[in-house]
Amino acid sequence: MTHDVPIQMRPIGVVETSVADEDVARQRRRLVSDIIIFDEYAAGLEGITEYSHIIVLFWMHRAQPPSELLVYPRGDRSLPLTGVLASRGRGHPNPIGLAVAELLERNETRLHVRKLDAYDGTPIIDIKPYDHYDAHTELRVPGWFEERANRPLSQDPKTSG
Amino acid sequence: MTHDVPIQMRPIGVVETSVADEDVARQRRRLVSDIIIFDEYAAGLEGITEYSHIIVLFWMHRAQPPSELLVYPRGDRSLPLTGVLASRGRGHPNPIGLAVAELLERNETRLHVRKLDAYDGTPIIDIKPYDHYDAHTELRVPGWFEERANRPLSQDPKTSG
Repeated sequence: MTHDVPIQMRPIGVVETSVADEDVARQRRRLVSDIIIFDEYAAGLEGITEYSHIIVLFWMHRAQPPSELLVYPRGDRSLPLTGVLASRGRGHPNPIGLAVAELLERNETRLHVRKLDAYDGTPIIDIKPYDHYDAHTELRVPGWFEERANRPLSQDPKTSG
Repeated sequence: MTHDVPIQMRPIGVVETSVADEDVARQRRRLVSDIIIFDEYAAGLEGITEYSHIIVLFWMHRAQPPSELLVYPRGDRSLPLTGVLASRGRGHPNPIGLAVAELLERNETRLHVRKLDAYDGTPIIDIKPYDHYDAHTELRVPGWFEERANRPLSQDPKTSG
């Protein structure tokens, strides 16, 4: 395996939402949207409704290739300059978005979900059921993160990823 | 966006472990290994050690393309046939592995981590800091999952993903 070997994926579905791109980040904690899985992968969803939460991986197809490896978290210049890999923003070398979404309903190839902060038309690249081993509650995070965790959303536009 | 548009990624690093492939699944809850981030992305790690846990996305380059969309979870034929997207096994259409790993130490481009169930030589495609919004404790999972959660590991070889 060298640096230069490209890895190729295919979308397995697409996000459908009527929320405008510019409102997605602000509304992300209550956002309700749909994932449409392409017909050829429909059988892969069997049993998914046994889980209350799913991990959704998506391809941020409109993200610009990162021009910088250091960014201000959430675009806030009062926070310390941070590496993109230590940040949940959009400027990662491979623009993969990750959301833990609540699975509200399945209707054949359509998954109705809450808290998927992806734009309309975003390609889905994988779905995994979320289980107890994914939940870690004894965490250390930066001090600024703890301080801001309880602010109203409108002041805290964390973006996809 | 159509089904057929391929998505291309590049590895940003590689897994280094002395544990043999066949022992990775069995040892996964205590496994300690290294991630080497390629030099050109090293600046992207700035600030990562502020977090106790990271989400590691990797490319299961030796996984076979899935021949079936329905599988027995953990290879156990006493469990219900389940769609690959509702399972954490290796047979997903895009073989992306996901692990929430404990970040023990950073030494320049080397991250020393616990609980990364990836084979030696596995390409890393993304790293994200894990935070409180990723931790969901009010979960619904299948009955068989709850029943088996407390079994000894050797009886329960959940695989990467």
